[in-house]
Amino acid sequence: MAAWGERLAGVRGVLLDISGVLYDGGEGGGAPIVGSVEALARLKRSQLKVRFCTNESQKSRGDLVGMLRRLGFDISEGEVTAPAPATCLILKERGLRPHLLIHDGVRSEFDQIDTSNPNCVVIADAGEGFSYQNMNKAFQVLMELENPVLFSLGKGRYYKETSGLMLDVGPYMKALEYACGIEAEVVGKPSPEFFKSALREMRVEAHQAIMIGDDIVGDISGAQRCGMRALQVRTGKFRPSDEHHPEIKADGYVDNLAEAVDLLLQHADK
Amino acid sequence: MAAWGERLAGVRGVLLDISGVLYDGGEGGGAPIVGSVEALARLKRSQLKVRFCTNESQKSRGDLVGMLRRLGFDISEGEVTAPAPATCLILKERGLRPHLLIHDGVRSEFDQIDTSNPNCVVIADAGEGFSYQNMNKAFQVLMELENPVLFSLGKGRYYKETSGLMLDVGPYMKALEYACGIEAEVVGKPSPEFFKSALREMRVEAHQAIMIGDDIVGDISGAQRCGMRALQVRTGKFRPSDEHHPEIKADGYVDNLAEAVDLLLQHADK
Repeated sequence: MAAWGERLAGVRGVLLDISGVLYDGGEGGGAPIVGSVEALARLKRSQLKVRFCTNESQKSRGDLVGMLRRLGFDISEGEVTAPAPATCLILKERGLRPHLLIHDGVRSEFDQIDTSNPNCVVIADAGEGFSYQNMNKAFQVLMELENPVLFSLGKGRYYKETSGLMLDVGPYMKALEYACGIEAEVVGKPSPEFFKSALREMRVEAHQAIMIGDDIVGDISGAQRCGMRALQVRTGKFRPSDEHHPEIKADGYVDNLAEAVDLLLQHADK
Repeated sequence: MAAWGERLAGVRGVLLDISGVLYDGGEGGGAPIVGSVEALARLKRSQLKVRFCTNESQKSRGDLVGMLRRLGFDISEGEVTAPAPATCLILKERGLRPHLLIHDGVRSEFDQIDTSNPNCVVIADAGEGFSYQNMNKAFQVLMELENPVLFSLGKGRYYKETSGLMLDVGPYMKALEYACGIEAEVVGKPSPEFFKSALREMRVEAHQAIMIGDDIVGDISGAQRCGMRALQVRTGKFRPSDEHHPEIKADGYVDNLAEAVDLLLQHADK
């Protein structure tokens, strides 16, 4: 593999995944990943532009940022690209009224959305909300529509909490796709539209941007397909087998965000 | 389409699906489909061999047969091919110890199976048992195995209860397949091995047998792939769009089991 100087040359903007990179969620709000609070602070003091690009869909952006600030991270709401606000824009543009299968923590993001007489379904990481009853209700709504439309806020397979691996929204999206014979529209990583909106908001071109994430599909492959570079951290949901994936190869593997920031500050934008 | 006489010529054995053909499940045990009790009685008085081939996995065979007998059906346990007993045979043959994600109603079928220190997962139609917590546990067991093995008792998309359409095991199988990056082994229709065991038990060759079911994939396509003929009933989970399926075409469509039996008694084995 080429030297880091070559791999990171010309990087002007950094997109950061949140869960598994900054912190691991879990009981009591979770815990920062060692070195990440300080690494983010260093990154933000540099000349590099920074934006957060998350598939978090259990919490509103406000709650997410509040929680991260309490953990010590320098982050504000306006710096976060998240799927719930992006979905609301799409629903409004297309005049759609969703049945929501979502976590109570993110419900406030949909306050301005008409949910009467639903003509589509929106699912997000609902956690315990993915009961049989709730899944069946979403299924029945879709089956009663002539043209069933399903939005999924991300399609992650699982994420890591302090207590272990947890099923994310993706498996439940697949369940409804199979049950109804349809294909969901994914809002969030690895959808190219989602990465592009994050790049627009950061005002950096794809070839000048690098994604740092723990998800080989959502973060690494997704960003690379948009023309970005991508570093995978060995934290969060990272598994050693990721480094031997037959098709997806990150532009680099680092132990954690702290190592990524060390390398970026040394080699980027040179 | 050819005349019924031609389509049913040489039929000597009839495989009957249960749910959606004999009865619709639901609160209080469900209700017989109009005419089915009498139709089954007529069929069993004929020269045709009859066997039941079900993906029912919420109930043990004993409970299922008891319930059907109370509804008036002439059926005994030895006439039923069902996925739970078939799965137990496979587990024993391969020395596998399952983690079970199943309905309490079928648990007795697994009484003789060692479930300590599991090295595979078995999922069946668990109904309300498909909680997030139970799904996550099955997922975690699979992710901890070096070679994760998942058995799914059938892969139906949904079934019909008196109260409406209900998610079957298939969507949850797809969820775990996606979450773990694996492919499940299906025990039940439309698996060819399952149809073949039902044919062996009925002692009829595939080309002399006809399947009667409400599921276009599990019953119709599955039976045809095994060299049988197949009639789809317009009861249970049947939907009008089934008759215009781009790839699957039943050998005939009938309003219900009663019409199927009328036709069989008139034209079969001639």
